[in-house]
Amino acid sequence: MKPIKGVVFDLYGTLYDVHSVASLCSQFYPGRGLEISMLWRQKQLEYTWLRSLMGSYAPFEQVTDDALGFVSKQLKLNLTPGAHEALCNEYLQIKPYPEVPGTLAKLRSLGLPLAILSNGSRHSIRSVVNHSDLAPQFDYLLSVDEVSVFKPHHAAYELAEQRMGIARGDLLFVSSNAWDASGARHFGFTVCWVNRSGNTFDELGERPDRVIAGLDELVGLVGSASA
Amino acid sequence: MKPIKGVVFDLYGTLYDVHSVASLCSQFYPGRGLEISMLWRQKQLEYTWLRSLMGSYAPFEQVTDDALGFVSKQLKLNLTPGAHEALCNEYLQIKPYPEVPGTLAKLRSLGLPLAILSNGSRHSIRSVVNHSDLAPQFDYLLSVDEVSVFKPHHAAYELAEQRMGIARGDLLFVSSNAWDASGARHFGFTVCWVNRSGNTFDELGERPDRVIAGLDELVGLVGSASA
Repeated sequence: MKPIKGVVFDLYGTLYDVHSVASLCSQFYPGRGLEISMLWRQKQLEYTWLRSLMGSYAPFEQVTDDALGFVSKQLKLNLTPGAHEALCNEYLQIKPYPEVPGTLAKLRSLGLPLAILSNGSRHSIRSVVNHSDLAPQFDYLLSVDEVSVFKPHHAAYELAEQRMGIARGDLLFVSSNAWDASGARHFGFTVCWVNRSGNTFDELGERPDRVIAGLDELVGLVGSASA
Repeated sequence: MKPIKGVVFDLYGTLYDVHSVASLCSQFYPGRGLEISMLWRQKQLEYTWLRSLMGSYAPFEQVTDDALGFVSKQLKLNLTPGAHEALCNEYLQIKPYPEVPGTLAKLRSLGLPLAILSNGSRHSIRSVVNHSDLAPQFDYLLSVDEVSVFKPHHAAYELAEQRMGIARGDLLFVSSNAWDASGARHFGFTVCWVNRSGNTFDELGERPDRVIAGLDELVGLVGSASA
């Protein structure tokens, strides 16, 4: 891997587990938590892509809220307004994957700037990192809300390059979302795909530079590439 | 509904049944036809949106081929090159829904120009309509290949307006894909959503002007709006 001067992380599904929402879904609908949270996540992503393409951007919180509205109708959940709100709020306090705090601490010690670049709004990103006490580990919290278009549009990735003042080719972008890793690679980042559960990489004409099974593997990788 | 001067149809899933591909999938993988064809269709759509957003357009045939490649790995199908090719070719001969030939004949008799506006390439569109002997019913076969971006990007919908020489507000756009109906409504068409199987409309900030359960209902609707 070529030398790198900074690391940019995706948030949802990469540092933080979006399906931790499933456990609250299960409290409302016993036995259906995963079904609900997976369709919710699927529609949430679709709506970010479709709104970006339509030229009809809306903040991530609204897209998340809209996606749950679809899921409630589609799966005939008859969600009460209170349950709907509780589920959306749960997205503000999703939990990091177990290896994340230790990995970030070790990466900090290497002296490289660390950033989050997320589809989430500034408010969402800040809520999530504060709730997990990880805010001090990041030099930059970057939201696509500033450019009003979601990843994988190039304007979203450009934010990291511009704000960090580091050329795209010198940045390592880390995501567990294959579509995001593809978009980042197409943009020109060096890309590491986190494949925790043996998923299949998407066929979008791009391949990640590295594939790891958990973020802890990043320490050795970044250590040797920044030495 | 306001008066209309022409009708624009989506092709895949609206005039033609994409899941007719499922029966060939079932021949290769008994009992798994629907599972395979549904994931294939899902990834095919995702890849059109993602490639458009990434600025990495590829023709529909390639996206369809790539999506099947993903499905084969993801579902561990071990598709042979021959089976892969046969399945992709099946997309060129998908079948129209039963009410389509009669409906088109009746709409023709009203004297309104009829068009297809599809994500498919010119070759794909022509193959499908020729195979079902419906080519003579259309005045325009329009492919997004001309603008190198897929629906729901506005440039794709603009093609119909420009080629037909009819303002968007005077055109009726007909699609069974809720995301497509939303994009078309956002663009400014009058929109009819075909909901054959009690689906839930997507939450993208738009609503169709009319909802019908089959294309045969279009005849009365268009007849009164063009009178």
